[in-house]
Amino acid sequence: MIKAIQEYYDEEFAHCYGCGRKNTEGHHLKTYMEDDISISKFTPKDYHIAMEGFVYGGLLASLIDCHGTGSASLFYARENSIAVKNYNAPRFVTGGLTVKFLKPTPLYKELILKGELKEITSKKVITKIEVFVDDIFCVSGEVIAILLPDNFGK
Amino acid sequence: MIKAIQEYYDEEFAHCYGCGRKNTEGHHLKTYMEDDISISKFTPKDYHIAMEGFVYGGLLASLIDCHGTGSASLFYARENSIAVKNYNAPRFVTGGLTVKFLKPTPLYKELILKGELKEITSKKVITKIEVFVDDIFCVSGEVIAILLPDNFGK
Repeated sequence: MIKAIQEYYDEEFAHCYGCGRKNTEGHHLKTYMEDDISISKFTPKDYHIAMEGFVYGGLLASLIDCHGTGSASLFYARENSIAVKNYNAPRFVTGGLTVKFLKPTPLYKELILKGELKEITSKKVITKIEVFVDDIFCVSGEVIAILLPDNFGK
Repeated sequence: MIKAIQEYYDEEFAHCYGCGRKNTEGHHLKTYMEDDISISKFTPKDYHIAMEGFVYGGLLASLIDCHGTGSASLFYARENSIAVKNYNAPRFVTGGLTVKFLKPTPLYKELILKGELKEITSKKVITKIEVFVDDIFCVSGEVIAILLPDNFGK
């Protein structure tokens, strides 16, 4: 797999504002696996500001959320030996999200999100997430991702 | 006070993408006190979608974040008998954020965010937050808000 996991989501589930390839207004976050770590990169817009020079915390929480569900898909596919192709990537939704803002995150630079597998079951993946700017560890997070149930939203 | 607390933030701290009145691209969340509960209302755009018919979780986390800092300002001003006027509202930043997605949140409707004071010290306010759509309790959250230090970002 050389494309981001979000490229393999079923079309029906590819509209997410944070990471859906079909959302024309969204962030289009892309998540890859490198060794045992999931990676997403994102450069905020100038208006994604909290205060002069620093990134809006809500954007950071949003990116952690989508990085968590993307990472869950990658880790779940790996653990279950699913060969990801043609829109068959397992699709997770967020059950719970925790974010700790350790330092103000500088704006105008690329954010690197790293995800580490913490727990995995047949229906749930928990990832520990860290956000860096220029190797400075700015934000930590944890995402409890739930495998999309067949009756989602019904 | 009849205006939202965000109208009373110092101009320097009114640029937040989520709630700053001076951010031309942002959400402009507005937070009011009603009896002992802080209230914000927000109607997502059509593109703030997670999956067809449901609100993007990252937006919900963002709104909870800003509702938390706005609520912190309101509760802090009340507890410390600060008469809010002319851009003197205490300004909080988020130290920590927890979100639990209890039910998929329906899109195309107004979200009501309610905040309740849980803990307050001279520098920190913790609020419990609940998000409703049509009286359906969809998302719960907690925000640890920190009074903006004089040396913020330095």
